[in-house]
Amino acid sequence: MDHVRAQLGASVDEVCEMVVRPAAASVDREARHPVESWKALSEIGVLRMRVPVEDGGFGLDLASYIAVIERIARACAASAMTVHMHSTACDAIVRGAPAHRRGEWLAPVVDELTLYGSWGSEPGSSASRLFHSSTTVVRRGDEFVVDGLKHFCTMAGVARGAMVACTLVDEQARHQPVSIFVPGEGPGIEVFGDWEPLGMRGTVSPSVRFSACGIEADRVFIGRSSPGGTAQLALGFSAVMLGSAEGALGTATDHCRAKVLAGSSEPIAADPLVRRHLGHVVARLAAARAVLFEAAREWVPDEPRWSVVPAARAKYVVQDAALAATSELMQIVGGISATPGLGLERAFRDVRTASLMPPNPDRMSWLLGADLLGEQVQMFDFSASQ
Amino acid sequence: MDHVRAQLGASVDEVCEMVVRPAAASVDREARHPVESWKALSEIGVLRMRVPVEDGGFGLDLASYIAVIERIARACAASAMTVHMHSTACDAIVRGAPAHRRGEWLAPVVDELTLYGSWGSEPGSSASRLFHSSTTVVRRGDEFVVDGLKHFCTMAGVARGAMVACTLVDEQARHQPVSIFVPGEGPGIEVFGDWEPLGMRGTVSPSVRFSACGIEADRVFIGRSSPGGTAQLALGFSAVMLGSAEGALGTATDHCRAKVLAGSSEPIAADPLVRRHLGHVVARLAAARAVLFEAAREWVPDEPRWSVVPAARAKYVVQDAALAATSELMQIVGGISATPGLGLERAFRDVRTASLMPPNPDRMSWLLGADLLGEQVQMFDFSASQ
Amino acid sequence: MDHVRAQLGASVDEVCEMVVRPAAASVDREARHPVESWKALSEIGVLRMRVPVEDGGFGLDLASYIAVIERIARACAASAMTVHMHSTACDAIVRGAPAHRRGEWLAPVVDELTLYGSWGSEPGSSASRLFHSSTTVVRRGDEFVVDGLKHFCTMAGVARGAMVACTLVDEQARHQPVSIFVPGEGPGIEVFGDWEPLGMRGTVSPSVRFSACGIEADRVFIGRSSPGGTAQLALGFSAVMLGSAEGALGTATDHCRAKVLAGSSEPIAADPLVRRHLGHVVARLAAARAVLFEAAREWVPDEPRWSVVPAARAKYVVQDAALAATSELMQIVGGISATPGLGLERAFRDVRTASLMPPNPDRMSWLLGADLLGEQVQMFDFSASQ
Amino acid sequence: MDHVRAQLGASVDEVCEMVVRPAAASVDREARHPVESWKALSEIGVLRMRVPVEDGGFGLDLASYIAVIERIARACAASAMTVHMHSTACDAIVRGAPAHRRGEWLAPVVDELTLYGSWGSEPGSSASRLFHSSTTVVRRGDEFVVDGLKHFCTMAGVARGAMVACTLVDEQARHQPVSIFVPGEGPGIEVFGDWEPLGMRGTVSPSVRFSACGIEADRVFIGRSSPGGTAQLALGFSAVMLGSAEGALGTATDHCRAKVLAGSSEPIAADPLVRRHLGHVVARLAAARAVLFEAAREWVPDEPRWSVVPAARAKYVVQDAALAATSELMQIVGGISATPGLGLERAFRDVRTASLMPPNPDRMSWLLGADLLGEQVQMFDFSASQ
Repeated sequence: MDHVRAQLGASVDEVCEMVVRPAAASVDREARHPVESWKALSEIGVLRMRVPVEDGGFGLDLASYIAVIERIARACAASAMTVHMHSTACDAIVRGAPAHRRGEWLAPVVDELTLYGSWGSEPGSSASRLFHSSTTVVRRGDEFVVDGLKHFCTMAGVARGAMVACTLVDEQARHQPVSIFVPGEGPGIEVFGDWEPLGMRGTVSPSVRFSACGIEADRVFIGRSSPGGTAQLALGFSAVMLGSAEGALGTATDHCRAKVLAGSSEPIAADPLVRRHLGHVVARLAAARAVLFEAAREWVPDEPRWSVVPAARAKYVVQDAALAATSELMQIVGGISATPGLGLERAFRDVRTASLMPPNPDRMSWLLGADLLGEQVQMFDFSASQ
Repeated sequence: MDHVRAQLGASVDEVCEMVVRPAAASVDREARHPVESWKALSEIGVLRMRVPVEDGGFGLDLASYIAVIERIARACAASAMTVHMHSTACDAIVRGAPAHRRGEWLAPVVDELTLYGSWGSEPGSSASRLFHSSTTVVRRGDEFVVDGLKHFCTMAGVARGAMVACTLVDEQARHQPVSIFVPGEGPGIEVFGDWEPLGMRGTVSPSVRFSACGIEADRVFIGRSSPGGTAQLALGFSAVMLGSAEGALGTATDHCRAKVLAGSSEPIAADPLVRRHLGHVVARLAAARAVLFEAAREWVPDEPRWSVVPAARAKYVVQDAALAATSELMQIVGGISATPGLGLERAFRDVRTASLMPPNPDRMSWLLGADLLGEQVQMFDFSASQ
Repeated sequence: MDHVRAQLGASVDEVCEMVVRPAAASVDREARHPVESWKALSEIGVLRMRVPVEDGGFGLDLASYIAVIERIARACAASAMTVHMHSTACDAIVRGAPAHRRGEWLAPVVDELTLYGSWGSEPGSSASRLFHSSTTVVRRGDEFVVDGLKHFCTMAGVARGAMVACTLVDEQARHQPVSIFVPGEGPGIEVFGDWEPLGMRGTVSPSVRFSACGIEADRVFIGRSSPGGTAQLALGFSAVMLGSAEGALGTATDHCRAKVLAGSSEPIAADPLVRRHLGHVVARLAAARAVLFEAAREWVPDEPRWSVVPAARAKYVVQDAALAATSELMQIVGGISATPGLGLERAFRDVRTASLMPPNPDRMSWLLGADLLGEQVQMFDFSASQ
Repeated sequence: MDHVRAQLGASVDEVCEMVVRPAAASVDREARHPVESWKALSEIGVLRMRVPVEDGGFGLDLASYIAVIERIARACAASAMTVHMHSTACDAIVRGAPAHRRGEWLAPVVDELTLYGSWGSEPGSSASRLFHSSTTVVRRGDEFVVDGLKHFCTMAGVARGAMVACTLVDEQARHQPVSIFVPGEGPGIEVFGDWEPLGMRGTVSPSVRFSACGIEADRVFIGRSSPGGTAQLALGFSAVMLGSAEGALGTATDHCRAKVLAGSSEPIAADPLVRRHLGHVVARLAAARAVLFEAAREWVPDEPRWSVVPAARAKYVVQDAALAATSELMQIVGGISATPGLGLERAFRDVRTASLMPPNPDRMSWLLGADLLGEQVQMFDFSASQ
């Protein structure tokens, strides 16, 4: 397994340098799918990292997985985020799909260039405040019918399927949170809408409307998110933010090493002040990294205290550090950092955008405090859907 | 004068609501000049705010001027910044132009839609670290010849003239910092380059190359920046950042008042936590505003301690508060804030970009400390040009 | 009036240098009343600053008053705080006492060395969370009877009287917040308890137990705190914290100017880094000062929006800046700052202690957010006493 | 070894609860040596944790050692710091003492209640700025003679010996940094001075004057601090600060769980806001802890990049987090936290005091930036002594 991990790690770095990083600027500018990155990463097995060995995947442990996401994010945050959303959907399949479906749904991930989405957002919902899904599923004979509107649906239109958070409404009008695995396209599934966000622009995320969309019964999974699943989600978001900030630190450091001002004979890296600012960023990111990997190593899927809690702690710290770092690095480099060349302004936009993904800091600090006081906690509050 | 100020203030607010704010999103998206805003602001006299009464302007005091820049920035930071750069050039003409030129150069500002630029940046220079201008001026008979490359030249191509920071080189190869007032176009002046910055995208700022560009002798002003002039520059930058953050606060507040989540009967503004976050931003911006206007009211042009020092204090505080505020407001509003609709992500980009304009925080904190220790300080260190 | 203010200001500075500052260290060490400071300040009229002119006082406007508190706090925070608590009690008398009592109670303040206290805290109450007073007043014939326990009663034992926050309980067991003005000693009034706090040690504040303590009916004032009164209270607290931090800045600056390390020929103030740190503190405190005096100048007693709101804004900002400043100044000066000689560690303790006085930051940010959303706010929530 | 570690850890917790924590308040109040804690800790072997197994000690690895220091600091920061300074001196003996002396000097640590000091500070020196030792050693025949003044000499008067940083001056007046191991008392060694510091008051640290103090030649160790030694020093300081803040977090949490306000039926821990504040502190301290133990685990004594650099990163982050945490915890708990009962104000004082120990944040951020740029770094700059 160590051997597999090391090999994958080396391949990832190579693919990132050869393909992912060079594509990142145009992916961002054009707000398009990082297709070339997906292709190259798929070839070395990155899209099946979290698929179990028995299903043909790498069955990578969580800490190694997080390290891969971080590495990709250093080169291109959008590539890392899409791979993470896809892996999250694969995980949900592994955990929740009926036996006869599992192989069917994972096979394309192993054999072809296939990505799955994971869609939770709705215009009237906030995962951190009150996670209510207005997208409903009702039984009609042998199948189920889906109605509702999702937005921020990453990869909608190109994903071959997606896990969707819904509310199952039974005949007594009782509500229950469920996940459904829908095909990427089909009757009753409409993908639409503009995509001009601040950052993470390669995570092309249009809206999806389900209108009387019928799906087979075995695509409905009861329950919506396990402690381990939500923890993993948050840890991946953290790895994207951290990697993005680390990439920016590398770029800024290279710039300071190379840049010589007119009238000076030394690069600005010789200025003790520049060193101190870089040193400050290094320290903050190192602490964030330490707490992130501690959480990934500790992860016990069914134990909130060893999944949800460390993940919330990690995202809380990483988010704060990555936001500060990307802003400070721009200040260190100065005016030129606001132009696209160095990629610093891209990292600044990417981190601010990625950090808006749930749970938000208020939810996390609440959860950490509640845990400290001995309470059982979950990442999101689904009570509004029940 | 109070009457003039009040009238101008009311007109500015009206023009901002009718013209400047509605245009702001497209100005940003297309990275184009805010021509409709300039036109409407020009009609109510905003472009001649700082032109003396005897030259046909408003002769507005600095605090009132800063208040106008702040108001415009609430609607569109780029419009505010271009007006400020133009006003700064007008000020330099008033302070430094020979009598026979002053009327000639100010008349178009009073009578027509005319803007002037103020260009200081160079690829190899940092105003905050070592302000050396490699753009040289040498005498050749009755005229002077300019050679060099400037970048970030706001309004280059449309400005009818611009103040340019240069180094005068005499026959003994001695150097002296000077400002020159160049025409907007002419032989030896080439405007070129892309413009795809993070923010402040309406302050279209290409590069300008001067190649053996001849100018009349009376366009060369000895000395480069008075204490009052650099203070005013920094105060205007501060007003742009503050106004931009205040505009974002208004937008975020409106959003929180209107937004009702599915499953809730109240707007999110009813959440005590949302109030606390908004309250935090209010307090930070109020303190920044107080120190900014204190500096503008205290301003004594020839006294560094009453111009450079309060201005540095103000920019230091405002910059920090506006950067934090625009980031925090996005967090309060959540995912939707990363899309262009609300303008919050624009303010986030605008403030990070505007705050890169000199002096940087290190220069300012150094300067404030040196002043505390009883030393005479200046905003920039021109020693490298001497 | 300007003349009076200027004269008072000059006298205050002189008395502070001659008496208040020299006494500050021993007042702190021994946790004793700053009697010599009170005496000297009383002689120049400081104890009757807020007593109206018609009652023999200075009738000082709020901004000038705040400036005096700030000046005293630069020399000794405890002296400033006790003067402020006393002045607050005088204000409550002016606002609420019946005509025949007003002269009687204010005369000693004008003619002799008299201080009054203002006691609100109780062991089971939090002014910022739920301001409930368990100390009750009930009518018994012509007089009222007080029962309850107050703690943190500044100057109890030496104050000649004190305003005390209580709950009036009528025959129907209905509750109403009231203030009562009690004599400094008498039957049913017991002063007790240790006093070993972190800071503000000269504000000697034992506990007071009222046991069936009878008071005259005209000592009971209905209502407990006006918008103007609570605003003034918070502004005075802010002036104490700000002045204390400014005093520490002065001390640290002097130290850096004088201290020369072995092996160096220059004082550490010559180090650009030391300057930057001092400059950072200067900027933060200047912004806090600007927002504090803006609030004091704007103060309109009966308008929450012009009293409570600006005062909350000011305390929120000042507290944050003063806490940070006193900690940072110790870091700049290094190990020696932890010893009593320079007074830096005293300021550090004083500010952390003073900043615990209500309202707390959560209450203030909530209040500022609620005001932003257009609601009427008050400084404290007395609903629990009603 | 794991068994030894586990056993020691359990014993430490027990001794801390039974002896160290109960003594902490009086140790602080009286600014006295924590003799009862030393005795109890000595009995379970804590004073020989870092003494090699072959010399009769535990030979504990660095991470386990740091964990013990952290545990003691949760109960009493001064006890932890004195044990750490002693252990640092033991380490220096192990690394630098000649073979025939090593056993002689370590035996009392193993067999009796013996502590050693480690004295570096001088009135005119700053370890973080310019680490020059004015205390000189010169050869006189077979022995060496020491002259100079040290201050902040922890345990001077009770320590049976101490490592002292000096400058060796040879006949050509050349300087070289050395450490000498002096006996605790003897001719030419005078201990004097008051001890009334802000915090860490149990680390009683008077001044020591060496006047023509003769010592044997084998007490002089050439060189002054190895990368591993300075890293270990900084990691121990970090463990003291972190443990102290963690202890305060525990106390504050207990308080919030127990405290019920009048008029409420629930403890204040039920307030979501209190949870969020506690959760924030938890997250910050967890990140600091993660980076601290990462550094301790990674520690390779002779490799600056695996000792000095991670240690600087850890101290930089821990210091910042512990300072913020102890201040924030006081705010959460409110006014009562400023009185001695809960120990929160003690932690606040202890952390601010301990964090002044070198290297300071400027030195650390510089060092981290220099390392990032590929330079070889050391914890302190001894160039002034050479």
